[in-house]
Amino acid sequence: MTSKPLPPLSTIGILGSGQLGRMLATAAAEMGFRTQIYCPEENAPAFQVANDVTVAAYDDADALEAFANTIDVATYEFENVPEAAVRQIANSVPVRPDADALAVAQDRLSEKRFMARIGVATAKYAAVESASDLTAAVNETGLPGILKTRRMGYDGKGQTTVTKDSDHKELFSALREMPSILEERISFERELSIIIARGMNGDIAAYDPAENDHRDHILWHSHVPGSIPAGQASEARDIAERIVEALDYVGVMGVEFFAKPDGHLLVNEIAPRVHNSGHWTQDAADTSQFEQHIRAVVGWPLAAPTRHSNVAMENLIGDDVFSWDVIASEPGAHLHLYGKRDARAGRKMGHVNRISKKTG
Amino acid sequence: MTSKPLPPLSTIGILGSGQLGRMLATAAAEMGFRTQIYCPEENAPAFQVANDVTVAAYDDADALEAFANTIDVATYEFENVPEAAVRQIANSVPVRPDADALAVAQDRLSEKRFMARIGVATAKYAAVESASDLTAAVNETGLPGILKTRRMGYDGKGQTTVTKDSDHKELFSALREMPSILEERISFERELSIIIARGMNGDIAAYDPAENDHRDHILWHSHVPGSIPAGQASEARDIAERIVEALDYVGVMGVEFFAKPDGHLLVNEIAPRVHNSGHWTQDAADTSQFEQHIRAVVGWPLAAPTRHSNVAMENLIGDDVFSWDVIASEPGAHLHLYGKRDARAGRKMGHVNRISKKTG
Repeated sequence: MTSKPLPPLSTIGILGSGQLGRMLATAAAEMGFRTQIYCPEENAPAFQVANDVTVAAYDDADALEAFANTIDVATYEFENVPEAAVRQIANSVPVRPDADALAVAQDRLSEKRFMARIGVATAKYAAVESASDLTAAVNETGLPGILKTRRMGYDGKGQTTVTKDSDHKELFSALREMPSILEERISFERELSIIIARGMNGDIAAYDPAENDHRDHILWHSHVPGSIPAGQASEARDIAERIVEALDYVGVMGVEFFAKPDGHLLVNEIAPRVHNSGHWTQDAADTSQFEQHIRAVVGWPLAAPTRHSNVAMENLIGDDVFSWDVIASEPGAHLHLYGKRDARAGRKMGHVNRISKKTG
Repeated sequence: MTSKPLPPLSTIGILGSGQLGRMLATAAAEMGFRTQIYCPEENAPAFQVANDVTVAAYDDADALEAFANTIDVATYEFENVPEAAVRQIANSVPVRPDADALAVAQDRLSEKRFMARIGVATAKYAAVESASDLTAAVNETGLPGILKTRRMGYDGKGQTTVTKDSDHKELFSALREMPSILEERISFERELSIIIARGMNGDIAAYDPAENDHRDHILWHSHVPGSIPAGQASEARDIAERIVEALDYVGVMGVEFFAKPDGHLLVNEIAPRVHNSGHWTQDAADTSQFEQHIRAVVGWPLAAPTRHSNVAMENLIGDDVFSWDVIASEPGAHLHLYGKRDARAGRKMGHVNRISKKTG
C-alpha cells in the first residue's frame, strides 16, 4: 500500500461494468492509465474501452485474488458490490473509496445512523425486520411513509409506499421480507444533489449542485445551476463536506438532498461513486467527475471543479434513445451513449448534456 | 453506400492505431459507436479503447476486404495510409475523408499543385526527380531551400536544407533518391494552423486558429488565441474553407500556415485528419476535434466549434512525460497520455492543455 501518486500506465481495477464503469475507463485511458474491469456479466458497456476484463462472480475468491494481483488500485462503479469482495481486494491493493464507506452507503439503515451520528438531518426512519416492526415503525415516522429494503435498492426498485390503508403483512412480503426501513415521505420543494470529491491529501472539491427531476423513480433531468438559492447550495456543500470528512473518504461521491418548503435540506442518500446527476460535468465543467474520481483513486491532486457553462442533463431512458438523430442536430447538445443494444423500458441508454452560456 | 446519418452502434473502421486513432476511438465510444482498428502494428495506443482490432499490412487485400465487411464506414488517422487500401475499402463502405483528398494530401507535389489550381498561395517549389533536377530547381526557388520527399515525411523526417554550398548529388542520395520537391525556405513571422471540419451536408465549422511553435521539427506548443491578428485569423479561415470546398471534403482537416512578415499567409501543408495542433479543443472547446471528425464521418451534423477558454497545448515528447506528476498538480492543466511504454527521444507520449479564462 502506497500513498504516493500512481504513475501513468498503472492499472486501475474497476468493479462493475455498466455505463459508469465505461465512462471511468475512458477517463482513465485519457490520463494514460490501464484499466481492468471485474464483473459477473458476459458482455457489458465498459468492456469496449477497457484493457482487460475479468468475468466472475463477486464471491469468487480465486478470481478476486487473481484480479487483485494484476492491478495497482481498485475502485467500484456502484455501491452494491459486496463489501466482502472489496475487503478481500483491499488485502492486496488499496481500494478507493474504502470498504467502510461502501458499507455505510450500501445499507440504508447504516447510512441513516451515520448521518444521525454526524448531525446531518434526514427523513425520520425506523428499522423494519418484520411485519409487526412495520406497525411499530409507522407510529414513529407517521404516514404516508416509504418502506425500502436496506440493501440493493436503486431507481425505485425495492420500495413501496405505506398509507393508512396498507396491509403491513402484504407490503413486507412484497419486499420478500428483506430487512428494511420505513422512511417518512418528505414533501419537498425540490430535489438536488452535489458531486463532491476528496483526494488522498484531504483536499475537497465540490461541483455546483444540480437540481434534479425524476420520472418513475429514475433520474430524468439535472439542471445546473437550476433554481437553487445560494444559501441552499452552500448548505449542500457544507453537509457534503462533513460527510466525506467523517468517512475519511477518497473519491467522488454523489449526495442527494430534499429541500423542504422551509428551505432546509435533508440528505436522501449518498452514492460512494460517480453519480448520474454529475454527468453534466463532462461538458460544462473544466474537469469531469470521471477524471476527478480517477485522480482521487490514483492519488493525484484533485482538479478545480470549475463550471464554464450552464447545463441541463437529460437521461435517455428506454425508447428515448431513438431520438438520437434529433438530438445530434441540436445546437449545444452533447450526446453520450452507452453502447447498449437493447432499449428496454426503464433502461438507461445514454444522456444528453445541453449547454448554454453561464449565467450564475 | 448511404448518405443517411449512421445510427449509434454502427461500427467505424479506423486505419492506423496511434494516439490520433486512440482519441478518435474514445470519442466514437462516447457517442455510442463501435470501433475497429486496422494497422500493421502488433500493439498500439488505440487498441485499449477499440472494440476490435485487425493486425495486417496495408497491402493485404484479403484482410482489407474482411475489415471492410465488418464496418459501416471507415476513416484514417494519418495520411500515409496507401491510397490503394482506401480505394479498396471504398468499394464496400464509404471512406471519409475520401481517397481523392488522401491522394492530394499525401504527396507534397500534388498538394502544391492543388493549391496553385485553387489560387491558394504556397512557398515556391519545384519537382525533383534527380540530382540534376535539383540543380534546375534551385534556380526556380532560390536558396536556401528545403528538399523534401514527396511522400511519407512527417515531423521533419525526409527533409534536408539546401544551401549554396550543398552537394546536390549527396543531398538527393541522402533522401534515397525518392521523388521529392524543393521548397523555398520561408522566413515567417509566425506559424499557425486551423482545424476545420466539413460535414456530409456541406456545412463547415472552423475552430479558432492556433499559433504554433516547433522544436526539432516537431510541434511543441499551440496557443489559442495566441498573438494572431484578427485579419490573419479570418484569412486562415477563408483559405481553409476554400480547400475543403474544392475537395468536397468530409471530416476534420488541419491546415498549417506560415505568416509572412507582410502579414499574408502561405499554406505549408494540409493533413486530412485530426491534427496535433487541434488537441486543445479537448479542453477549451465545447466539442473536441475528435467528436467533430466522428460526427462528419458518420454523417451527423457538425457541432459548433465554440471555444470557451484560452488554452496553451504542449506536447510531451520523449522524457517530457516524466513530468506528469508536476503537471498533475498544476491548476488548469489537463493531461492526456497515450499509454505508450517507451519514452524514446522524439516520440509523442502525450500532451497537456493548460486552460485559462477566455480573453479573445
